[in-house]
Amino acid sequence: MHTQKIAILGPGSWGTALAQVLNDNGHEVRIWGNLPEQIQEINQHHTNQHYFKDLILDEKITAYLDLKEALDQVDAVLFVVPTKVTRLVAKQVAQVLDHKVTLMHASKGLEPDTHKRISEILEEEIPEKLRSEIVVVSGPSHAEEAIVRDITLITAASKDLHSAKYAQEIFSNHYFRLYTNTDIIGVETAGALKNIIAVGTGVLHGLGYGDNAKAAIITRGLAEITRLGVKLGANPLTYSGLSGVGDLIVTGTSVHSRNWRAGDALGRGEKLSDIEANMGMVIEGISTTKAAYELAKELDVYMPITQAIYQVIYENQAIKEAIRDMMNNEFKAENEWS
Amino acid sequence: MHTQKIAILGPGSWGTALAQVLNDNGHEVRIWGNLPEQIQEINQHHTNQHYFKDLILDEKITAYLDLKEALDQVDAVLFVVPTKVTRLVAKQVAQVLDHKVTLMHASKGLEPDTHKRISEILEEEIPEKLRSEIVVVSGPSHAEEAIVRDITLITAASKDLHSAKYAQEIFSNHYFRLYTNTDIIGVETAGALKNIIAVGTGVLHGLGYGDNAKAAIITRGLAEITRLGVKLGANPLTYSGLSGVGDLIVTGTSVHSRNWRAGDALGRGEKLSDIEANMGMVIEGISTTKAAYELAKELDVYMPITQAIYQVIYENQAIKEAIRDMMNNEFKAENEWS
Repeated sequence: MHTQKIAILGPGSWGTALAQVLNDNGHEVRIWGNLPEQIQEINQHHTNQHYFKDLILDEKITAYLDLKEALDQVDAVLFVVPTKVTRLVAKQVAQVLDHKVTLMHASKGLEPDTHKRISEILEEEIPEKLRSEIVVVSGPSHAEEAIVRDITLITAASKDLHSAKYAQEIFSNHYFRLYTNTDIIGVETAGALKNIIAVGTGVLHGLGYGDNAKAAIITRGLAEITRLGVKLGANPLTYSGLSGVGDLIVTGTSVHSRNWRAGDALGRGEKLSDIEANMGMVIEGISTTKAAYELAKELDVYMPITQAIYQVIYENQAIKEAIRDMMNNEFKAENEWS
Repeated sequence: MHTQKIAILGPGSWGTALAQVLNDNGHEVRIWGNLPEQIQEINQHHTNQHYFKDLILDEKITAYLDLKEALDQVDAVLFVVPTKVTRLVAKQVAQVLDHKVTLMHASKGLEPDTHKRISEILEEEIPEKLRSEIVVVSGPSHAEEAIVRDITLITAASKDLHSAKYAQEIFSNHYFRLYTNTDIIGVETAGALKNIIAVGTGVLHGLGYGDNAKAAIITRGLAEITRLGVKLGANPLTYSGLSGVGDLIVTGTSVHSRNWRAGDALGRGEKLSDIEANMGMVIEGISTTKAAYELAKELDVYMPITQAIYQVIYENQAIKEAIRDMMNNEFKAENEWS
């Protein structure tokens, strides 16, 4: 493949790591952000110290404050901005983009209130003539490991296999490898909903439960987010892939996960308001729990773990009671998807 | 349900833990074994110190050396003996059992050379008139946690849903919960094959790889054992359940797993013969890797991780070369089951 010009929107930890991967593969990478000091730092010092203390980026990676400049003549655009600002940034892109690009994103979440997936937001805001079918890249990926070129495998999903293969090709190398999938609904919902289970796994750890219980909540959690995903149109097998099981393992068994740590603190009896104040950042799984709880009610999907976490977080139910209730639910078969 | 009389064949750690679960539920439990001192210990001191130092078993749990006595008038028989002696014990059962029972097992493995599942062995050796359709109970379950009544969720699978429900009912309580499944091929192969991936996860850890690589090998490992299972007649969704993903999480992320520890030592450069000598016990994943490698060849199933582990263990291939080869494989779609 010829060298591609690619704009990465969002100079966070994952955006920076993906910029390095693409640069390693010989592509021309531009990072766009809205903090002047950060953009200047990347261009002048080739560092992004807020996320990576010891990293020196390749000098060929450039950063832009001006969106139109960043998008000038690019072949592809990759969104890596927080879920809540995706719509805003997409509106801006639609205003200044003057040609057709391959449109990708690497964010995990559901829009609050609308419960829409990221690709749905992008489809609504960016006209078809300016973009390919949207591609999501998602999977088990601590940015801290990808940035040091540790082995990382993720999924590239799009309704259009050709667009997914484009992402597979530009990102893959000897330490970074992508698998294609055409089930974008499955991949996007898996990435968002797995954070609920990560909170739940943390809760059990905080309460002192062991490995059996951890494996149980991850597996039964997977079953219920699969049930919701299937109702939304996903293929159940997608959830056993990298964006489902894979990401759940990284998020649900790692003390590095914010969602896991929030659950752990809840399990040890701390209050949610204190936990959020101490972390000083948004805990995605908390708001995703609310979105999934509402969706499950609306679509009549049985999600006992999500419901229990919702009740603990938003209705002050005692955690031990919630667990007792779950263990006393009626007997079930393992693969009930409806 | 009325009190059931149940014979557990095999007084190992898991057999003992399951005996306690059934006794907690009010059933009459008899343990059969072939070591006179151990049987005497259980009957006189109500302990099984080889496996559980601090455990006192309920006095109602009795142990037998005589198989015919142990099976007298029982409603159900549960095999929990090592894979390699299953056929031998089944032959003995067929000789002395004089009435029809619900036949269950809780072992994980494939018979060496024949590659048969445990239920296939039991079907061959115990006539239909003496047994129900066979039930396997399998899932993420450290015996050390179940014995202290920590939360444990597993699967009961049988071609006959009625038999699976029987197991669900006798075992389930407030800390132990079973989900039914009719895909016994899937549940048995998942339990056996997951040990290969546990070895592989250990290898990556021993080499110093991080969480991304761990999640990647577990997920792609799951994809390839699913491919083999599907070829053998399993439902791919079974592998995302408790006996697949669930057990893989417990085995592949826990330093308590023998298979994981063997892989870790391999990754750190130790020799297999030394590792086996140091552990002083059989490492199931090592022989299962051979069985799966042979099956994959015979059935033409693509299993790159199993193949790499096989080559490292049995053909002295350098581990780093094996990993490099895997990362350079042709591009794939995520859900290729054939």
